[in-house]
Amino acid sequence: MSNTSYSQLENLFNRIYQLQHLASIGHWDMATMMPAGSSHARGEALAEVSVIINELISDTSTGDLIQNAQQQQSQLSSWQQANLREMHRLWLNASSISSELVKAKALAGSECEHAWRTLRADNNWQDFQPLLQKVIKLTIEESQQRADAVSLSPYDALLNLYEPGQNSAAIDVIFAQLVEFLPDFIQQVVEQQAGDTVIKPAGPFPVEAQRELGLALMKKIGFNFDQGRLDVSHHPFCGGVAEDVRITTRYAEDDFSESLMGVLHETGHAKYEQGLPEDWLNQPVGSARGMGIHESQSLFQEMQIARGQPFLKFAAPIIQHYLVNELANEQTDSRCWSAENLYQLNNRVKADFIRVNADEVTYPLHVILRYDIEKLLINEKLSVSDLPEIWDAKMQQYLGLSTAGNYKDGCMQDIHWTDGSLGYFPTYTLGAMNAAQLYHAANKEIPDLSRQISNGEFTDLNQWQKDKIWSQGSFYAIDDLMIYATGEKLNPRYFIDHLKNRFM
Amino acid sequence: MSNTSYSQLENLFNRIYQLQHLASIGHWDMATMMPAGSSHARGEALAEVSVIINELISDTSTGDLIQNAQQQQSQLSSWQQANLREMHRLWLNASSISSELVKAKALAGSECEHAWRTLRADNNWQDFQPLLQKVIKLTIEESQQRADAVSLSPYDALLNLYEPGQNSAAIDVIFAQLVEFLPDFIQQVVEQQAGDTVIKPAGPFPVEAQRELGLALMKKIGFNFDQGRLDVSHHPFCGGVAEDVRITTRYAEDDFSESLMGVLHETGHAKYEQGLPEDWLNQPVGSARGMGIHESQSLFQEMQIARGQPFLKFAAPIIQHYLVNELANEQTDSRCWSAENLYQLNNRVKADFIRVNADEVTYPLHVILRYDIEKLLINEKLSVSDLPEIWDAKMQQYLGLSTAGNYKDGCMQDIHWTDGSLGYFPTYTLGAMNAAQLYHAANKEIPDLSRQISNGEFTDLNQWQKDKIWSQGSFYAIDDLMIYATGEKLNPRYFIDHLKNRFM
Repeated sequence: MSNTSYSQLENLFNRIYQLQHLASIGHWDMATMMPAGSSHARGEALAEVSVIINELISDTSTGDLIQNAQQQQSQLSSWQQANLREMHRLWLNASSISSELVKAKALAGSECEHAWRTLRADNNWQDFQPLLQKVIKLTIEESQQRADAVSLSPYDALLNLYEPGQNSAAIDVIFAQLVEFLPDFIQQVVEQQAGDTVIKPAGPFPVEAQRELGLALMKKIGFNFDQGRLDVSHHPFCGGVAEDVRITTRYAEDDFSESLMGVLHETGHAKYEQGLPEDWLNQPVGSARGMGIHESQSLFQEMQIARGQPFLKFAAPIIQHYLVNELANEQTDSRCWSAENLYQLNNRVKADFIRVNADEVTYPLHVILRYDIEKLLINEKLSVSDLPEIWDAKMQQYLGLSTAGNYKDGCMQDIHWTDGSLGYFPTYTLGAMNAAQLYHAANKEIPDLSRQISNGEFTDLNQWQKDKIWSQGSFYAIDDLMIYATGEKLNPRYFIDHLKNRFM
Repeated sequence: MSNTSYSQLENLFNRIYQLQHLASIGHWDMATMMPAGSSHARGEALAEVSVIINELISDTSTGDLIQNAQQQQSQLSSWQQANLREMHRLWLNASSISSELVKAKALAGSECEHAWRTLRADNNWQDFQPLLQKVIKLTIEESQQRADAVSLSPYDALLNLYEPGQNSAAIDVIFAQLVEFLPDFIQQVVEQQAGDTVIKPAGPFPVEAQRELGLALMKKIGFNFDQGRLDVSHHPFCGGVAEDVRITTRYAEDDFSESLMGVLHETGHAKYEQGLPEDWLNQPVGSARGMGIHESQSLFQEMQIARGQPFLKFAAPIIQHYLVNELANEQTDSRCWSAENLYQLNNRVKADFIRVNADEVTYPLHVILRYDIEKLLINEKLSVSDLPEIWDAKMQQYLGLSTAGNYKDGCMQDIHWTDGSLGYFPTYTLGAMNAAQLYHAANKEIPDLSRQISNGEFTDLNQWQKDKIWSQGSFYAIDDLMIYATGEKLNPRYFIDHLKNRFM
């Protein structure tokens, strides 16, 4: 039976999807192809289309249609009902803050982000602080307006933009287990690795050879090049749309590994997009299930698979083929290309200042530090002026390092807060934990999974991920999706077990 | 004094401009970067955004705003008034045909165009005819609906979509002079050229060397690479937006000249876009003044400048540098790289079947043939079934060639009619004539223009074109623009004189 309000909503969200398609390609082009002098014009075009999309979603008539459709919900299929639930969520997100606040925050955010690019390099906290203060003040206001609309605490209202249905009370419990486990564990691992002899392959590795290697491995693990591309950008990302996924990387000639692992990471994101439910792509229910699940797919590919022994056993001769044989490269020590050496290289642990360079073991503590501080800021229990001090204290507690006076490697290192994206950080570590739990489940259901991976066979694994995660889009809530895929909701023990297995 | 209705219109047309920006980049990406499997999704996105744009323009409220603004017109500046005039024109174009007809024509057009790609290759008129018939029938209906709305004849109503303010009565008179002059002239030129010894440089010329050559000459003649790019596509075009112009070419390794002249042609289009009035780019008055003027800028660059002796004197050593010296290419006969030989090579005349391959002298007759036939079709004085016969008759009359039974090189060779773009063809030859008249005027006002060109100095010429054409956007009507730039409206004698000078 047709539901007029519901059909109208499908048409509306199809329109939004098509606008997002062009905006995504415009974003990708800006990062990969666009000449420098066009950035102002592109910025205007992208800003206008995001205003249009926001207007379409938050319009009162959209709210009315949703209400009408909800009253006739029993006539809808389960996927239509889930779609309507997602529409309602998007409508709430779009309509719960005033357009004045949206504008003010966008303005303060772009001012702060722009200044940050030079102030960070200059270690200039003095001039950065008032700009950040302005952004945080507006983000607190935003969190309160959102909190009222969705009946959550202010911080959870922000978190829900990235991790729908999740809350900080549950995350607190999970993260507490990591904080208890990790600091000692890191020390043990570092001590143990001190005795290892690891040989770093000597470059230079020409960009074209690295690109060919990346493309070859992307193909092996199932990236669909008929609907996607690999290009270069300053900050690697996975963009485009499900039907045309654009991933990027950047190359350093003296270190092939950074780009290679980056490419595999983004390919994990890409395969999720390429595996989303075909029939629902243009609807909210057809899109990926939040940032924590998205990150779980990239970290599944990178951490669970690509940095593991079975994959490196398969990949070692391919890497050697593209970087040594094809180039007639003379490495002084050919042992550096062994799977075992590559495995050790890819799993070195070291407490350090910068999150984006962190290894798998120390990374969660970087995230938890930010999560702790974000909550204090939003709950107005910490003022921006005290940020350097608390950052230093927590770095000492978690990683035994001091950032006193070192703002650029401390509280000025990330872009996220400059435009007020508070609530985002926890998704990185939720993703890492989801990934470990998913791998554990896949490994139970595909009995010879390790052997398959070491032979370069990914069909069964891709099918499992597609069935359990990719093709489910946003049909389930996050907890239910994890239950559907693994039998239980997020449980940090799988991640902790994974770290023990890999690093001890 | 502020005019509320007018300001609202500026906001509305800014929104449309920003949507067009993303659509243009989406089109460019589709032709240059997009993987094959994404074409359906991209097609959907581009179609939806063109529906949105059409809705925004044709909305009743837009018509009301225009009417209100017109009543307070005296309070507007002259540029604002011209902008309002262009808004009104766009509103009329968008609102004068029914949305059912737009849909039916788009459907029939895409069906016919898609079939044409294989049917043309198979010389299959039988199966093509009914598809074209359907498109022509709907285009006749369109022309009549438009004619009613704009009080013009049906054909002129279509012509006005590409050449605002122009009419077929005036074009008939102009084209008649070409028909009288060209057939005999072509014979004389062919006879005269029969005695020339022209040496074709032997390839292969690697794509990368051709690309470097094209980029070098684009730079010399003033393409702004800070706001534009050169890429490869199957059909060369000039796309993107004024602030980010994307031109394309294709390379044949055995013939560098085709790509090089194509690149210079598209650079002519590009410089027009890059020179449009900065303050008005996001408004209708800031856009280019119709297709005939646009084509005049590409043909100015290609025909008036690049295929002329002064330019080739300047370019010959550069061409030789990139295609011979840099490649250590051993040409058996180095005389082929002389300016004189390149000049002869670039100006060979031959009556032939295919418009897109035609030289400067025979090209207008290809266009006039199509123009004659289009008018008959729209005025219902010719049925589609009689198309091959009249094509053959006119080819014999104009160029002394028969296309009997040879549909693929006859009436099936062009894409334009397959989607019902009747009224477009004359703009090619109007462009060629405008270009000759503009060059004549520039040459009078810049006394040592030939010398400047042969020295590779283009500053004065670019400034002249910017002042006279580019920076005027759509401020003037076409005739007035030609009067502003050259002192008189289009007069075919400049084109005829140009042909006599160059070819006799």
